[in-house]
Amino acid sequence: MSLKRSTVQQLLASQELDREVLVKGWVRTRRGNKYVQFIALNDGSVLHNIQVVAAAENFPEENLKDVATGACLAVRGTLVASQGKGQSVEIQASEITVLGKADPETYPLQKKGHSLEFLREIAHLRPRTNTFGAVLRVRHALAFAVHKYYNDNGFFYVHTPIITGSDAEGAGQMFRVTTLPADNPPRTETGEVDYAQDFFGKATNLTVSGQLEGELAALALGKIYTFGPTFRAENSNTARHLAEFWMIEPEVAFNELEENMDLAEDFLKYLVRYALDNCADDLAFLNEHYDKELLARLRFVVDNDFQRLTYTEAVDVLKGARQKFEFPVDWGTDLQSEHERYLVEKHFKKPVILTNYPKEIKAFYMKLDDDGRTVRAMDVLFPGIGEIIGGSQREEDLEKLLARMAEMHVPAEELSWFLDTRRFGSAPHAGFGLGFERLVLFVTGMANIRDVIPFPRFPKNAEF
Amino acid sequence: MSLKRSTVQQLLASQELDREVLVKGWVRTRRGNKYVQFIALNDGSVLHNIQVVAAAENFPEENLKDVATGACLAVRGTLVASQGKGQSVEIQASEITVLGKADPETYPLQKKGHSLEFLREIAHLRPRTNTFGAVLRVRHALAFAVHKYYNDNGFFYVHTPIITGSDAEGAGQMFRVTTLPADNPPRTETGEVDYAQDFFGKATNLTVSGQLEGELAALALGKIYTFGPTFRAENSNTARHLAEFWMIEPEVAFNELEENMDLAEDFLKYLVRYALDNCADDLAFLNEHYDKELLARLRFVVDNDFQRLTYTEAVDVLKGARQKFEFPVDWGTDLQSEHERYLVEKHFKKPVILTNYPKEIKAFYMKLDDDGRTVRAMDVLFPGIGEIIGGSQREEDLEKLLARMAEMHVPAEELSWFLDTRRFGSAPHAGFGLGFERLVLFVTGMANIRDVIPFPRFPKNAEF
Repeated sequence: MSLKRSTVQQLLASQELDREVLVKGWVRTRRGNKYVQFIALNDGSVLHNIQVVAAAENFPEENLKDVATGACLAVRGTLVASQGKGQSVEIQASEITVLGKADPETYPLQKKGHSLEFLREIAHLRPRTNTFGAVLRVRHALAFAVHKYYNDNGFFYVHTPIITGSDAEGAGQMFRVTTLPADNPPRTETGEVDYAQDFFGKATNLTVSGQLEGELAALALGKIYTFGPTFRAENSNTARHLAEFWMIEPEVAFNELEENMDLAEDFLKYLVRYALDNCADDLAFLNEHYDKELLARLRFVVDNDFQRLTYTEAVDVLKGARQKFEFPVDWGTDLQSEHERYLVEKHFKKPVILTNYPKEIKAFYMKLDDDGRTVRAMDVLFPGIGEIIGGSQREEDLEKLLARMAEMHVPAEELSWFLDTRRFGSAPHAGFGLGFERLVLFVTGMANIRDVIPFPRFPKNAEF
Repeated sequence: MSLKRSTVQQLLASQELDREVLVKGWVRTRRGNKYVQFIALNDGSVLHNIQVVAAAENFPEENLKDVATGACLAVRGTLVASQGKGQSVEIQASEITVLGKADPETYPLQKKGHSLEFLREIAHLRPRTNTFGAVLRVRHALAFAVHKYYNDNGFFYVHTPIITGSDAEGAGQMFRVTTLPADNPPRTETGEVDYAQDFFGKATNLTVSGQLEGELAALALGKIYTFGPTFRAENSNTARHLAEFWMIEPEVAFNELEENMDLAEDFLKYLVRYALDNCADDLAFLNEHYDKELLARLRFVVDNDFQRLTYTEAVDVLKGARQKFEFPVDWGTDLQSEHERYLVEKHFKKPVILTNYPKEIKAFYMKLDDDGRTVRAMDVLFPGIGEIIGGSQREEDLEKLLARMAEMHVPAEELSWFLDTRRFGSAPHAGFGLGFERLVLFVTGMANIRDVIPFPRFPKNAEF
């Protein structure tokens, strides 16, 4: 008779005992004595293992010799109430088949704890650990929550291009995408590299943001969001930066700065609440092993209004602070991480939304305030993370936008398609970008961004 | 008093009449006489426009001079039952504000119909048309359905890398990703381009598939899927190929070929059913204007079992066909589009799943059948589309896999990380790839793949 496989999650949640079950998974640990062996089996469906009990009378040691940490098993047996601590059910094994061995001499993930640094070197195997299983399940839940939030609120998901001929922010170092031979590219008559012969007939790069294309879509479909990979060719070897990361960028026609803040706050609270509601086991594990204040911090974000104030007000707060800063604060300079952390962690003790920054330190597309000095930017600052969201109301007036582009040396001809949104049926609109890995970092309590994406890309590293 | 904006979708679905409403959107058409003007307003939330009625006594012509096709308006008025045909409600306007003009002399989207070819040239504006609004809303619904299907079925979404040092299929032309200066790259002592000085310390490319990394994740988390951009640097100027497209790749530990087919069929039916249930207006529009058999074809896919047969059986069917083929059919050769279409559209008249192809025409990672001649591959063939899914059970045996790699000249050293899945706790597993744009093509009934992605990338084209 063919018995359907159950997942560990289904078995641990089952009320239906004393029935025959089939489970498949990987051995986490094995212990026991001469009468009985206990095998902790995990199949990735959930943090917890199921305990498989193998009585020595049915399973002589020679039959279990390949049942070592990392081996893959198929186990048939009876699901029974557990006598042991730490689990409500266990399996009394009747049949154990080794599907794939794992030689204890060479398998890198023995049961002792491993440093996160070591696990980064074997990123292809680390999803088999409790920590990365938990992080990846939380990451999944957050990604799904992003889509669910926007779908439920009438936004349309738009796939903006990855390969692009334009640089949205007028800044940001980019990766070049090419099929020209590196060794000896074709040349023009004047000796320059002839990009007309490249795949796309011109020089192309990997996108740094889908915002400009997102604006086009928002001024047609009303409410849109993007969720895709973005790239920075910056030589940043920090715990906060990746060369390849995923970004979420909503853009809403007719929204102004206030509604943009409302959206950002509601969205972030929804995501954190979704994780609390759907990832209780994984978050409890991370709270216990990595960050004892994690759950308290997540609940705090959900339960409290974010503090909203202007850049100008923030500068006043910082100037009045008793704390000494490494970088002096003066109106017109960009805030440093130490300033943001002071505002969030010490002064307001809650997430902060800063608005209306000096135009000189923000991008060309942000809407100019009436005073002509500041723009309708907004940054959302989170404890431990700093800036988690950056956004703005956009300049919808063609003449003002052209003037800002000229001041900031952004080439208007290249962005003529973008400017068409302001030429034809322009409208107020606003949006923001949320770095997905920064969100996962915040929700999991991990310290290094390389530990919240399956295969991190950073300078000198594109393994796997 | 501040009145909250309603979307056109909300208003058209509203039962609550004779109340003041505020709506914002873009003018699609304007017509009328000296007593009254009718403005069709669309905000992208839904296919249909809402009719705004502006009585001449309240709105003299000079106040409406900028109310032209493409202009953006804010309209206040009373929502009332409509006397006209084609809509149940309309707005008796009390206030009309032009937020953004659209000069009729220069705005490219006047109300007359435009060819799809012309619209491709103004891809930044085409989301403002009925056709592309419909396509993009269906595309959104299908993307959400993908995530919902997998989330509801216990799969985890895994972000596999976009920038990669490996080529999953051992084939496929790739785009190079680099920060080396194109004009004068650094050289080694022997004069070759020195990739050790490139950003990642070696030559890197854009991914052609997330499968290999997906396998790593499946052999830890059990059931996973990817949904991300993939790239082909192939000089294919066809209606079926893009240089940048989105792919969905589920991978399931412990699944064999039969379960892989079950998953593919259930998944495709779910997606089509989701579109039928959630995109009725948009699909009806596409059915009427582009493909009169669209709805019938979609319902047929949902209602009928897919025909499953082996490659060998298919070759027999084709050899017995009365039809003459341009390419002769012989066991061992790959099937051409004409053969696939014959099987699907003429012989079985339903979607077909072909399995157990000759090993010579399939990838190295597919599980060898016991006869040593065929592999556990599966292709799902759809009417009008041809191959919509390609997949297989994977070779889980390290020795057999190494032998196939050697036969096919796939370098084992470079894929050592991938082979670790077979070294440590290997397990049967299977998966497949669904090209998202081919799915959207099928569900919308559009004829050209460049019309189902917002900003298509193909040879000599990376505009916007």
